[in-house]
Amino acid sequence: MRKVALTGFGLTEFNKDDIAIDSLMLSAVKSLFDSAPNLSQKDVDVVLTSTNDNSKYLSSIVSEISGIRPKISHSVESLCNSGANSVISAFSYIASGLADVALVVGAERFDSPGLVLEWDKSRGQYKHPIYWSSMFTKSHVRKYGTTKEDLAIVSAKNHNHALDNPCAYFKKTYSIDEIMNSKNLTDDIRLLDCSMPCSGSAAILLASEEAMKKFTDSPVWITGIGQKTLSAGFTKNEELASMESTIDAATMAYKMAKKEPGDIDVAEVHDAFSICEIIEVEDLGFVRKGKGNEFVRTLYETNDRRINPRGGLIGAGHPLGATGMAQIVEIGQQLQGKAGKRQVSQARVGLVQNMSAAATSSSILILES
Amino acid sequence: MRKVALTGFGLTEFNKDDIAIDSLMLSAVKSLFDSAPNLSQKDVDVVLTSTNDNSKYLSSIVSEISGIRPKISHSVESLCNSGANSVISAFSYIASGLADVALVVGAERFDSPGLVLEWDKSRGQYKHPIYWSSMFTKSHVRKYGTTKEDLAIVSAKNHNHALDNPCAYFKKTYSIDEIMNSKNLTDDIRLLDCSMPCSGSAAILLASEEAMKKFTDSPVWITGIGQKTLSAGFTKNEELASMESTIDAATMAYKMAKKEPGDIDVAEVHDAFSICEIIEVEDLGFVRKGKGNEFVRTLYETNDRRINPRGGLIGAGHPLGATGMAQIVEIGQQLQGKAGKRQVSQARVGLVQNMSAAATSSSILILES
Repeated sequence: MRKVALTGFGLTEFNKDDIAIDSLMLSAVKSLFDSAPNLSQKDVDVVLTSTNDNSKYLSSIVSEISGIRPKISHSVESLCNSGANSVISAFSYIASGLADVALVVGAERFDSPGLVLEWDKSRGQYKHPIYWSSMFTKSHVRKYGTTKEDLAIVSAKNHNHALDNPCAYFKKTYSIDEIMNSKNLTDDIRLLDCSMPCSGSAAILLASEEAMKKFTDSPVWITGIGQKTLSAGFTKNEELASMESTIDAATMAYKMAKKEPGDIDVAEVHDAFSICEIIEVEDLGFVRKGKGNEFVRTLYETNDRRINPRGGLIGAGHPLGATGMAQIVEIGQQLQGKAGKRQVSQARVGLVQNMSAAATSSSILILES
Repeated sequence: MRKVALTGFGLTEFNKDDIAIDSLMLSAVKSLFDSAPNLSQKDVDVVLTSTNDNSKYLSSIVSEISGIRPKISHSVESLCNSGANSVISAFSYIASGLADVALVVGAERFDSPGLVLEWDKSRGQYKHPIYWSSMFTKSHVRKYGTTKEDLAIVSAKNHNHALDNPCAYFKKTYSIDEIMNSKNLTDDIRLLDCSMPCSGSAAILLASEEAMKKFTDSPVWITGIGQKTLSAGFTKNEELASMESTIDAATMAYKMAKKEPGDIDVAEVHDAFSICEIIEVEDLGFVRKGKGNEFVRTLYETNDRRINPRGGLIGAGHPLGATGMAQIVEIGQQLQGKAGKRQVSQARVGLVQNMSAAATSSSILILES
């Protein structure tokens, strides 16, 4: 398996602007090219687009408007973890030797399809994601005594982090009281426990060990990959206080990278709702099961940025097909030491956890500088 | 690069039935499993879906209803060459070592999105594919003297071949006169020069050299891959009597497989319209430029099946996301000697050419038994 590096990154602001999906993608591609002076369109032999948008032939459209004539070009869709799937697909094109340089660009509009889980008949009329997150919350509360304040702390922390992320959807912080008193959406979930759909785009350049030398002196290597899909309907889950697909994917990724949870210096985890981050830090092995709430509280109280330094989905916004991409951009920039005010010191090994639809599938990447 | 084999195939009938996309896919998956007694759901670690359908999370849905819990799972879209792109993506997952066994399933409904090329503003109001095929036809007629009868011969030949394909959309043959006298759609194109959108599905199992031993004694190896995307809008083409993306992709594929056009025993080429097959047999190097019309006439007159033995898109129908898959299934079965009445004798090396949107992109596979 050939080594594959991340060598360049592009981002747009996340907002509610009414922008065409191809224009969103072009903005992230331009941002990537602007930061990579040695990169020419002719270098790129794969263009993949990650989105839930219904546009067809989007990778060819984005290639054309970017002035690229790639060999391999297609769209990748897997709902909320489209982004990580796209990057892993690009990894495999390069690792196999079929390609040397891949541009992956993810984008979504605020009004994207995929926000409501229409296909899951087992949900009855409860197709909105707040219902699965509500059931996850109730289950974790019962088993481990997680409180409304614990949930609010996730949101307060991630909004704090987002304030140093110039691309974040949210531009303000919230107190724990404000979050706990925000609108009740269900018995278990308040408005500020939720990530917000928005428009946004992120782009990543991947290259083989040989090709990457032209583009960067600080490559970030993909050393671990783990993925698992359990079902498409979350009511098949046997356990709602854990994410089984995340546990399986993490086991694979740690094994491939020859790393332990304790080796991870910085991580982006998929906090679609507050409860997700608490469950994920447990299921990724950062802390013992049932202790996620205490762990996140300590991070908040000590202003420790190592989980979701860019503000996570709750602070930065959740443009579905761009989310996994933006998570990887953040960890890439952290490992390059280029995360500005968000920088976690001594970050050498990072992890990205990107999941879909009540964690019925999970994708995990381990990155190293 | 690890070797990758095609080891199993599944197909549904192509028709105009009103069937849900996931049910279509499940039928092709069932057909594949029925023909692979040693294959268990637990063997499959990649599930990719190829379609232009707007369904989200379809690969997870198809995995769930097929009883598979894969590692890697996502949809691939690139309009009419989604199928070949999906198989090449699965190839790269296995060739890189990320996976061992991949199930790829393509399907489309007769009323699929992607039939009209909405994104190509350069077409003005002429967004239907008959307009690009009309311009290709006019250009080839002017340059090389191709006649209406030459075009009709492609259609007559492929309808003849389809009669021996139990899955084909068309169940009858047409005389050259009937084709030439079918409804004029433009100055250059008649109704029976066109492939027909339809519902249908095809599935393929790919495996590594080690894993394939469990599933088959007659593996078909992917030995050559070539792809090229030039643009998303065909008016960027400098030349309308050739398919530049096909020439580029074929050059790559022949080089990778260390083969010449003369080595190809049997080929599926993307005859979305009659003119396409004439241009493609030239651009793939099977005959000198401008001689495609004579070449196809000879195939017809000698009842030589080596081009589009299953009837091509014109005879078998064109369910977009399933088309490239069905082309690969046909060549796979030909190389296994399992093509029944359609069998081309002594077929050892085969080629598939699958393209999108006026050949603005092309994907080519070379397969060997």
